[in-house]
Amino acid sequence: MIINAGIVGFRGYSGAELQRILARHPKVETFLIEHRADSSGRPQPMGASGPERISCTPEAIQAAGIRVVFLATPPEVSIELAPPLLDRGIRVIDLSGAFRLKTVENYRRWYRAEHPAADWLARAVYGLPEFYRSEVGSAALLSNPGCYPTAANLAIRPLAASGLLDLDAGLICDAKSGVSGAGRKPSLKTHFCEVTENFSAYSVLDHRHVPEVLMNSGLEEAQFSFTAHLLPIDRGILETIYFRAPRVKDAEQLHALYRDAYHSEPFVRLYAPGVMPDVRAVQHTNFCDIGLDFDPATGRGVAVAVIDNLVKGAAGQAIQNMNLMFGYPETEALL
Amino acid sequence: MIINAGIVGFRGYSGAELQRILARHPKVETFLIEHRADSSGRPQPMGASGPERISCTPEAIQAAGIRVVFLATPPEVSIELAPPLLDRGIRVIDLSGAFRLKTVENYRRWYRAEHPAADWLARAVYGLPEFYRSEVGSAALLSNPGCYPTAANLAIRPLAASGLLDLDAGLICDAKSGVSGAGRKPSLKTHFCEVTENFSAYSVLDHRHVPEVLMNSGLEEAQFSFTAHLLPIDRGILETIYFRAPRVKDAEQLHALYRDAYHSEPFVRLYAPGVMPDVRAVQHTNFCDIGLDFDPATGRGVAVAVIDNLVKGAAGQAIQNMNLMFGYPETEALL
Amino acid sequence: MIINAGIVGFRGYSGAELQRILARHPKVETFLIEHRADSSGRPQPMGASGPERISCTPEAIQAAGIRVVFLATPPEVSIELAPPLLDRGIRVIDLSGAFRLKTVENYRRWYRAEHPAADWLARAVYGLPEFYRSEVGSAALLSNPGCYPTAANLAIRPLAASGLLDLDAGLICDAKSGVSGAGRKPSLKTHFCEVTENFSAYSVLDHRHVPEVLMNSGLEEAQFSFTAHLLPIDRGILETIYFRAPRVKDAEQLHALYRDAYHSEPFVRLYAPGVMPDVRAVQHTNFCDIGLDFDPATGRGVAVAVIDNLVKGAAGQAIQNMNLMFGYPETEALL
Amino acid sequence: MIINAGIVGFRGYSGAELQRILARHPKVETFLIEHRADSSGRPQPMGASGPERISCTPEAIQAAGIRVVFLATPPEVSIELAPPLLDRGIRVIDLSGAFRLKTVENYRRWYRAEHPAADWLARAVYGLPEFYRSEVGSAALLSNPGCYPTAANLAIRPLAASGLLDLDAGLICDAKSGVSGAGRKPSLKTHFCEVTENFSAYSVLDHRHVPEVLMNSGLEEAQFSFTAHLLPIDRGILETIYFRAPRVKDAEQLHALYRDAYHSEPFVRLYAPGVMPDVRAVQHTNFCDIGLDFDPATGRGVAVAVIDNLVKGAAGQAIQNMNLMFGYPETEALL
Repeated sequence: MIINAGIVGFRGYSGAELQRILARHPKVETFLIEHRADSSGRPQPMGASGPERISCTPEAIQAAGIRVVFLATPPEVSIELAPPLLDRGIRVIDLSGAFRLKTVENYRRWYRAEHPAADWLARAVYGLPEFYRSEVGSAALLSNPGCYPTAANLAIRPLAASGLLDLDAGLICDAKSGVSGAGRKPSLKTHFCEVTENFSAYSVLDHRHVPEVLMNSGLEEAQFSFTAHLLPIDRGILETIYFRAPRVKDAEQLHALYRDAYHSEPFVRLYAPGVMPDVRAVQHTNFCDIGLDFDPATGRGVAVAVIDNLVKGAAGQAIQNMNLMFGYPETEALL
Repeated sequence: MIINAGIVGFRGYSGAELQRILARHPKVETFLIEHRADSSGRPQPMGASGPERISCTPEAIQAAGIRVVFLATPPEVSIELAPPLLDRGIRVIDLSGAFRLKTVENYRRWYRAEHPAADWLARAVYGLPEFYRSEVGSAALLSNPGCYPTAANLAIRPLAASGLLDLDAGLICDAKSGVSGAGRKPSLKTHFCEVTENFSAYSVLDHRHVPEVLMNSGLEEAQFSFTAHLLPIDRGILETIYFRAPRVKDAEQLHALYRDAYHSEPFVRLYAPGVMPDVRAVQHTNFCDIGLDFDPATGRGVAVAVIDNLVKGAAGQAIQNMNLMFGYPETEALL
Repeated sequence: MIINAGIVGFRGYSGAELQRILARHPKVETFLIEHRADSSGRPQPMGASGPERISCTPEAIQAAGIRVVFLATPPEVSIELAPPLLDRGIRVIDLSGAFRLKTVENYRRWYRAEHPAADWLARAVYGLPEFYRSEVGSAALLSNPGCYPTAANLAIRPLAASGLLDLDAGLICDAKSGVSGAGRKPSLKTHFCEVTENFSAYSVLDHRHVPEVLMNSGLEEAQFSFTAHLLPIDRGILETIYFRAPRVKDAEQLHALYRDAYHSEPFVRLYAPGVMPDVRAVQHTNFCDIGLDFDPATGRGVAVAVIDNLVKGAAGQAIQNMNLMFGYPETEALL
Repeated sequence: MIINAGIVGFRGYSGAELQRILARHPKVETFLIEHRADSSGRPQPMGASGPERISCTPEAIQAAGIRVVFLATPPEVSIELAPPLLDRGIRVIDLSGAFRLKTVENYRRWYRAEHPAADWLARAVYGLPEFYRSEVGSAALLSNPGCYPTAANLAIRPLAASGLLDLDAGLICDAKSGVSGAGRKPSLKTHFCEVTENFSAYSVLDHRHVPEVLMNSGLEEAQFSFTAHLLPIDRGILETIYFRAPRVKDAEQLHALYRDAYHSEPFVRLYAPGVMPDVRAVQHTNFCDIGLDFDPATGRGVAVAVIDNLVKGAAGQAIQNMNLMFGYPETEALL
């Protein structure tokens, strides 16, 4: 069975990546939904046709027989667009942060705004398939995880679940992201001359992706430090995670925790103890690669996780979720 | 009084930077000392004369009336070149790691080799002027600090000295450096195509710069984690330092510790609490810029320190040391 | 029918690209041929298997049932490896410059060496499918064009063939290439710090790719200027081509020449007159994109051609040739 | 004598560069003039004082005793700000294109607008000191050349003046510039992700810098082709210039033309025949470096010129002009 899928925000970086991946999906017919807030396109060869374009109204979307809409839009746009589509029975995969937190209290605290669709906030499924595969399948509103939390959650959970972590020492996540994570809208922060040959920390001790890590790892706020940094690269995230685990015997024991957790996961790859993945290893793929090392003498360890922020951190994971929602093989179009 | 100064390794990145800075020093006449192991130069305009060149023998160096030699050379070359110069009363500023550690035991452990000049190892002065200004002045053999430890030591010491640190939680230093820190010798690691649009961790839980931090901060090995990363930029280091300090009241109290420590230092600059420096702020300068933030609710804080690895992390600091050794104003040629 | 194909030099940039593309080719089983001169690999996830590896002897290659060998090797290695394979009836696709020129005289002049396999030089087929599709199909030894000439030839031929060019004014090709074109072997020229934030011309008025353009365009040496430049990017070539064509009426007439030449080509795409492709448009694809503009007032025109030097300029074109040689659809694995 | 100088647009890239260079000028006291259209600044260390700030009215500027104002502003702002300052006897150095062309006809053609201050257009002095040193000294309104034409004019003039050029073949200037030439205002064109690992041509056959080359070289429009390209670097311009000169005997004869023209110029440096400068050679300097090569067999030659677009292409040249206007040594603060 082939379904019709629509993309709002198809000229943004996540939207363009959705379009690229869906183009090779044998079970999906893509529609580009023109939204006023979208940015301008790129020069095209003559005769390039591409998917059909429709306008961004619930009626037009329904009339096109669209079964699922990807919202690659800012949170405020997603909050406005999702409910009327959902009311018509069209499933929504939202790539923004609009529906990631579970409660209005949390949303108010971290996004500093009231959530205008509290009922949908409660019903949204958090689309990290490695943790919530069964819920994803039946989701009406699927909230795609943030790019930073995707890497952090996958890198932290086996350790956090093991009970071996020294919770007082806490867990430090030093995260570095390429510029495409900031979106395609021009700003001084993303100006080439401000970024090239530069490197900077931002959102120190205050980053809206923290609660997504807490709610998936069971860590409390006092046990977790997160700092984001801007890398002078287009795409890719690398997170270096520091912890104390005094009862862990050696790197091999640590490694076994992760093998047990992920051995059957198609998109999580482990490296031998002491070998660390780099960003290049996952660019343009839906993989999350994880390396681990541990020093028994000090009881301190390090995990390094890498993803492509536009694939496993956005469009790829969204399509992985879509595959689960429509009963397709989970890896379709993603390997 | 004008002195003659020589540079060995003047075509490497640190050596070229020494040459650039010394060219504007009113009290120094520079000599380039040709060493067999040096790399090849760059295309030059016609008529560019540049400093006089001499050969790399103690006799030739003495005959040129050279009072101080900068060794911008690998450790094994520095160990070979320094003693005969010192024996002739020529002062040596070594930019390699050859003489940074105080004991042969430490050297053996971290550099995995025997030190062939143990007496000079013991007599070398560690040239971090902010900590050891008085010893620097009278040094015969000055060992210039590593680039990573320079930033880490300046960022850590006021806090470590305050007794406010939670030593069990320990202190995490997540360090990122530009490629010039790896030197000018070509290798796969520094190949443009391996570095651009990439980012990687290296020397995880095992980095020879760690002991330089321990010996200057009073921290023990189990209390300190250090990971190095390779940034796709030419020059610059940013280190993000994480700690718990439960008895600290607020960011302002933390900030005051640093103001007290550095208010009269010409090359350490503080930012307002919560404001973080980026690499751009210090490129091509001898400054170390430090930003601080602290969350009283969790007792966790972050310090960010940036330097130019070729200036405050190498050539600039070497000349700052030279200024102190010869009684020149400390900032001469460096502001 | 599925064939066995081998790659020599699979860790180099072209070789890795061959491996990536062949992995999705449904009619090819890939073998990696270990050659002493190959560079070292990259960190791998555990359990990554990859293609079978065999040793680089004609016997082992024949024993593995290999029908075609890709030589992603320096010319001197290709010259040594190709003949014994060909003698055994194994077809060879050589990505080096070893067999691109037709005569030993030309080879001596531009490569400054004697060609030790003159008979194979004469029998090699120049693998630019857009020009020599029928010869390619029956080639035993296929010489894959250089990256610079591929773009230049495709951009120049319709105009050169039209007779509209002012041959006295001649044709200027200003070519810019990413660093991967220089190969993976480390050198000062490809050191990150020498390339980033830099840009340079090289091989001015003397570049061994010139004769490949002359022999395909009919231009004489005095009518053609070529200069290569090194872009601080990983992959991609852009060539800006300048010409006078006083009898051309307008950009539309010029454009029609190209439409006629390429309308049925699967890998050549034209842009509307005045619209120019950028390198991004073709990265990781086998396309050559061409933009054209013309000023009737001055009789001067410009063509801009872009390719990915590792795909249409190397591995992609090699596989396009392989498809033709074995009767597969020309675009298999390449769209 | 020390003069007061003001900068409008001091947060833009040219303005920041003016500020940096003037900070080391012993004869200038700098004032920063706050203009509504300026962009936002960068994080600063505490206690950083910097120059005095004044508001952007003719009265305030006059009251501060300012003798010369640098306008690092868009043309439309310069056209508005310059006349009232000039009327008060304050000299103006304009870095925009507002006053570069000599006639309203030319301005209309290339800038596609009417010039509202035609009298000042006629009286402005074109500030390329190597060609117009004597006029510069007495200028009230100094129009600083564009970055592209500065390199092109210096590279072309000795040849164009020699009468040896084949004017029918014409002269081709293939120009490549770093992104800072596009200014600090964010746009999609300067977004990091659109520029990194990319390269593109723009303003093909239609670039407003062309007339500045024609008016200084004596070339006619039909004899000159110019195409601009965007390099993924922060700062620097490299122009590759192609020509036929059938009566030139060899590269040495060509070289002699340039030596004669520039031997006493402090900011023009020549390379030996066949040696080409790269962008790195001039970054952060006021030099224009020129390399030349010539092939007697074909009568074709190439010149390569490099400048830093923010220094010799903007702020540095503006200060070189200021030095001449106020009788200071021409190289003051620029070597």
